[in-house]
Amino acid sequence: MPEKDVVILRIGHRPERDQRVTTHVGLTGRALGARGMYLAASDKGVVQSIADVTERWGGEYFCEDNVKWRSCIREWKAEGGIVVHLTMYGLNLPDVIGEIRPKRKILVIVGAEKVPGEIYGLADYNVAVTGQPHSEISSLALFLDHLFAGTELRNEFPGAQIRIIPSKAGKQTEEL
Amino acid sequence: MPEKDVVILRIGHRPERDQRVTTHVGLTGRALGARGMYLAASDKGVVQSIADVTERWGGEYFCEDNVKWRSCIREWKAEGGIVVHLTMYGLNLPDVIGEIRPKRKILVIVGAEKVPGEIYGLADYNVAVTGQPHSEISSLALFLDHLFAGTELRNEFPGAQIRIIPSKAGKQTEEL
Repeated sequence: MPEKDVVILRIGHRPERDQRVTTHVGLTGRALGARGMYLAASDKGVVQSIADVTERWGGEYFCEDNVKWRSCIREWKAEGGIVVHLTMYGLNLPDVIGEIRPKRKILVIVGAEKVPGEIYGLADYNVAVTGQPHSEISSLALFLDHLFAGTELRNEFPGAQIRIIPSKAGKQTEEL
Repeated sequence: MPEKDVVILRIGHRPERDQRVTTHVGLTGRALGARGMYLAASDKGVVQSIADVTERWGGEYFCEDNVKWRSCIREWKAEGGIVVHLTMYGLNLPDVIGEIRPKRKILVIVGAEKVPGEIYGLADYNVAVTGQPHSEISSLALFLDHLFAGTELRNEFPGAQIRIIPSKAGKQTEEL
């Protein structure tokens, strides 16, 4: 199977209130196998934080702000990709992940509190991680982990300046 | 096997800066099978937000603030529980979850940015979800999902006032 191409589209981001949560969304995507994040808002703080992590910790992860979500979705579909919208109102993850897993090119929409109703219709799959309120960060983490079936937990990040040496107790790092 | 008893201990919380992230930590615990959250700080806002969700969405989840982390850990261990500390410096989740999964009573420490060095020694397991920087919310979500082997995604929440009816597109809820 050719390598997957998974990209996040973050919508509904409000620059002051959501900066930290959106940065966590972006970093979760990076750590768990996505290729990058489109941000449908203007926020250079998020872009810079994620660029700093990628420079230091390796891999090739992009974060682009000022993206228009309608054209982003349209272009993604025109290139043959599918669109998954994470929402507590959707079908439960274990019931749909088997159908999504074989797809190669997946845009994952992660909304903040309010999401335009139109998104539900544009998405190929509306997916819930439980139907309970919790966090878009945990929803994204579980979606990616189930999509990659846990293999992403051993991803390598080439070109890193620093690496952690896993240890039973304490902090060990290696400068590369 | 008797039912598991999993509780979160949130440390390093700074009331203004961390309120939203800590609330997400607490709600992630609730949605994914934990019994409650101890908060080692004073923050009635977090306690209230979580109580509101539990009242409306069901189940029995507690959130207690002003907890002293040293005595919390000591008492937990005295009652025969084990302590897992989620940290990017620990052993990678897939390498240790098999050893942790059979344990019944588990305190999961979720730190904010700075964690006292002592915690690493007090924990029975220091567990990393990848050795990459991302989010304590996604780390907790993946830890709980791997601990419960995905079964928690179908948990029921008795006594709810509202329930989502999973749907392919759109929002459907049911008042109970």
